[in-house]
Amino acid sequence: MSTKRRGGRSRPTTSGTPRSHSYRQLQHPFTPQAIFSEDGVARIHEMALRVVQDLGIKILLPEARQIFEAAGALVDHDTQIVRIGSDLVEAALATTPTSYRLRGRSVLRDQMFKDGSMLFAPGAGCPNVTDLVRGRRAGSLETYEETIKLQQSFDVMHVFGPSAEPQDVAPALRHYEMMRIQMECGDKPNFVYARGRGQVAQSFEMIQLGNDMGAQAFDDDVWCFTVINTNSPRQLDVPMAEGIIDFARANQLSIITPFCLAGAMAPITISGALVLQHAECLAAITLAQLARPGAPVAYGGFSSNVDMKSGSPAFGTPEHIKLSIGSGQLARHIGLPWRSATGAASNTNDMQAATETNMALWAQLQANATLTVHSAGWLEGGLTFGYEKFINDIEALQTIAELCQTTPEDAESLGWSALSEVEPGGHFFATQHTMDRYKTAFYEPLVSDLRNHGAWRDDGAKSSAERATKIWQNTLRDFKAPHDSTAVADRLAAYIESGKAKGGAAPADG
Amino acid sequence: MSTKRRGGRSRPTTSGTPRSHSYRQLQHPFTPQAIFSEDGVARIHEMALRVVQDLGIKILLPEARQIFEAAGALVDHDTQIVRIGSDLVEAALATTPTSYRLRGRSVLRDQMFKDGSMLFAPGAGCPNVTDLVRGRRAGSLETYEETIKLQQSFDVMHVFGPSAEPQDVAPALRHYEMMRIQMECGDKPNFVYARGRGQVAQSFEMIQLGNDMGAQAFDDDVWCFTVINTNSPRQLDVPMAEGIIDFARANQLSIITPFCLAGAMAPITISGALVLQHAECLAAITLAQLARPGAPVAYGGFSSNVDMKSGSPAFGTPEHIKLSIGSGQLARHIGLPWRSATGAASNTNDMQAATETNMALWAQLQANATLTVHSAGWLEGGLTFGYEKFINDIEALQTIAELCQTTPEDAESLGWSALSEVEPGGHFFATQHTMDRYKTAFYEPLVSDLRNHGAWRDDGAKSSAERATKIWQNTLRDFKAPHDSTAVADRLAAYIESGKAKGGAAPADG
Repeated sequence: MSTKRRGGRSRPTTSGTPRSHSYRQLQHPFTPQAIFSEDGVARIHEMALRVVQDLGIKILLPEARQIFEAAGALVDHDTQIVRIGSDLVEAALATTPTSYRLRGRSVLRDQMFKDGSMLFAPGAGCPNVTDLVRGRRAGSLETYEETIKLQQSFDVMHVFGPSAEPQDVAPALRHYEMMRIQMECGDKPNFVYARGRGQVAQSFEMIQLGNDMGAQAFDDDVWCFTVINTNSPRQLDVPMAEGIIDFARANQLSIITPFCLAGAMAPITISGALVLQHAECLAAITLAQLARPGAPVAYGGFSSNVDMKSGSPAFGTPEHIKLSIGSGQLARHIGLPWRSATGAASNTNDMQAATETNMALWAQLQANATLTVHSAGWLEGGLTFGYEKFINDIEALQTIAELCQTTPEDAESLGWSALSEVEPGGHFFATQHTMDRYKTAFYEPLVSDLRNHGAWRDDGAKSSAERATKIWQNTLRDFKAPHDSTAVADRLAAYIESGKAKGGAAPADG
Repeated sequence: MSTKRRGGRSRPTTSGTPRSHSYRQLQHPFTPQAIFSEDGVARIHEMALRVVQDLGIKILLPEARQIFEAAGALVDHDTQIVRIGSDLVEAALATTPTSYRLRGRSVLRDQMFKDGSMLFAPGAGCPNVTDLVRGRRAGSLETYEETIKLQQSFDVMHVFGPSAEPQDVAPALRHYEMMRIQMECGDKPNFVYARGRGQVAQSFEMIQLGNDMGAQAFDDDVWCFTVINTNSPRQLDVPMAEGIIDFARANQLSIITPFCLAGAMAPITISGALVLQHAECLAAITLAQLARPGAPVAYGGFSSNVDMKSGSPAFGTPEHIKLSIGSGQLARHIGLPWRSATGAASNTNDMQAATETNMALWAQLQANATLTVHSAGWLEGGLTFGYEKFINDIEALQTIAELCQTTPEDAESLGWSALSEVEPGGHFFATQHTMDRYKTAFYEPLVSDLRNHGAWRDDGAKSSAERATKIWQNTLRDFKAPHDSTAVADRLAAYIESGKAKGGAAPADG
């Protein structure tokens, strides 16, 4: 209890008032769109219930099967198939929270995870990184730290993500570095990989240490999240099931994310792929609620299509857009906040890369996704995180964030004074109405260059990718860690040293 | 009358049934969004009425002032200011048609110009063109013909536009070539520049000749359109006023398009810039209706902001998006179909260029713009038409066009058969449900390359701009003119020869 109070004292007790044009807490500017009728959504939901009840889900973790069995599900331990009655699913949905505060170490970074909120997360899970200076290479401790610093530096990145993990660190020790760097370099909500119980438990302990709080304070709030990818179709592996259980028991957020590629791991139709996605989500959400009723667990979808020429996953396609909008309808049908994703299959910083990500981004706006993952930096369908792509995507996200500002429609804004002052064919540059507003009226671009062709050419004719190099370099050069970074490092050092000396925690086998 | 019947016989009498996944006639897939309250929209409309009534519009053409004067407007011929009472504006709005068929020579190219329709027009009005083979240069007869062929080749381009006009043709003769090439190379609705009465009248005659119809048939339908740019703020020059009058009297479509740059030629606020845009539109629409009640005239807006660093117009910015959505609200407030525009300020084929155009494109989807101009090929804020940019933008437009297809939600689509057939962890490639659909299930990319990094690298590591070169080259190489192209050419030849011999028609002075 004393630790809880100590944790509380180290933070402001009232929510910070965001400055004007802050991108820190955003609400969706657009009302959600639909691709299905209400009846259609209900039919997809009903068929998903039938999938989990009649076909069942193969669950590789014995403990998870036992949890389901104890609750009344039909379990075949030989085939590992668990058939979950719709009564169980409905009971789980009744206890799943629809709103919770996802906390950062700084209260200014707190996010309400609920319908209507608009959160962005960086491109994540990439084995490689690339930039125009150093080329394409495997992610390392150095680039992990750089990408966390880039994420911390832009307010429109609301939570951390593992853009590329440090592959030069042994798998059993990697989580130490990933948690340490997130907390030393930043104050946003943390991401934890669900790669086995040891790593998860130690990551939770590090968050408590880093944020200077005790177990109860940690349990009272949601301080981190993980992404649970099912093994579509209809399968949940050991670390994923462990992750659901362990996050639920610790009151931390697991985001269920089937990766349903229509035509490959899912039916080829939009509605069919969503039946499967929805079924897998419902089963995983039920497991979380059985592990701890009321645990924060989010609906998720990252369904797209495969390119029928290459067999590769596609992003920003009409199918990806439709699947996103349909996912939003299903999430709202069961009343849960949810995550989606942008993405790009392009192999380089070209118009394809931008178009794929922008199309997918606008899909999430139409879909009112609560959290949009991979929203900056993804290339090659997630195989590479691009520094210059990240900067260009941030421009797009900031453009969207600007739309969340109310547009003034009062008499002063309408500008009769200026309209009556300027002669026909004249200009408004010198009116008082303009002078009063010109410094803050418009979004100031981050990387876009709006100069004319001659000025641009004379300045080296740089593409937006080339210009982005200087921006990420300067961002890293000027990076300032949060004020309490040294204290965080001090609190974590002994724990990590001791953990490393004991060999760390091996990731679980799938 | 006989000419009318002859014209009628040369066309199918029933509307063609578009093939599945046709992009020829599209309806907006999304419901429109709002940035203003209904009260706010009404206030902007009221203030715009006050602008035209109390401040007035400077109209440089005496005939236009006389038309207004005869209708009861207060005209000061010395200052050329016309003050138009709101009763006149409201009477004009009452006679402005809300729906008309914009005709191509082929009935398959007809477009219903009305609320809910979604039409795209190419990047237009560019003095320069650029491609990766031949570089950046002034538009010529050769490139005018090429760009019209490119426009004709993609169904998602619904009407023609002057991507870059043939500057190697004398101004007094240019309209002959522009009309000839549109009709010889294509069968879509034509664009006519409003550059003086002689050129407009001759262009109308060429359309009648080219389409083998008489004056009455021409007058019975809408066969072409022009864009009327006001000289913001509050001014209408001679050729523009002539264009409004002449197009109205000929029952052809003029699209009123103030280019209100907030902070420069318009108030710096979103709502203030829209008051000015709306006022100028209302005045011009009123002139069209006074010239001929019931004439097709469309509301339009191409309002954006200036970059406060460079003074250049900006596109795809938060302000451009908001101005578009607000324009849509105003157009619906007065019940008229309307045009908007995308755009890009970028000087090259980079992520900035794609992002600017994509952001502006999605703005028009949120705004439900009837016609979106500059939707493919614009660079440098319209100073250059890019061939590779055009191909990449077509990909984006086709992606949007795919969203217009209804998403099946019937039992077969939901795919129970496939779901129950595939084992957990298996795949759907070989199911009958997939086999029945895989050839047509997904959009097939035009220029996007979804191969993995190795395959892409081994094939030359080409960007989407570089790949687009081959696509426009092949499109031009394989181009087939409409079946009646030779007959069209024969009908036009003597007219053009005779017109040229007489020196053509000089463009009007502004």
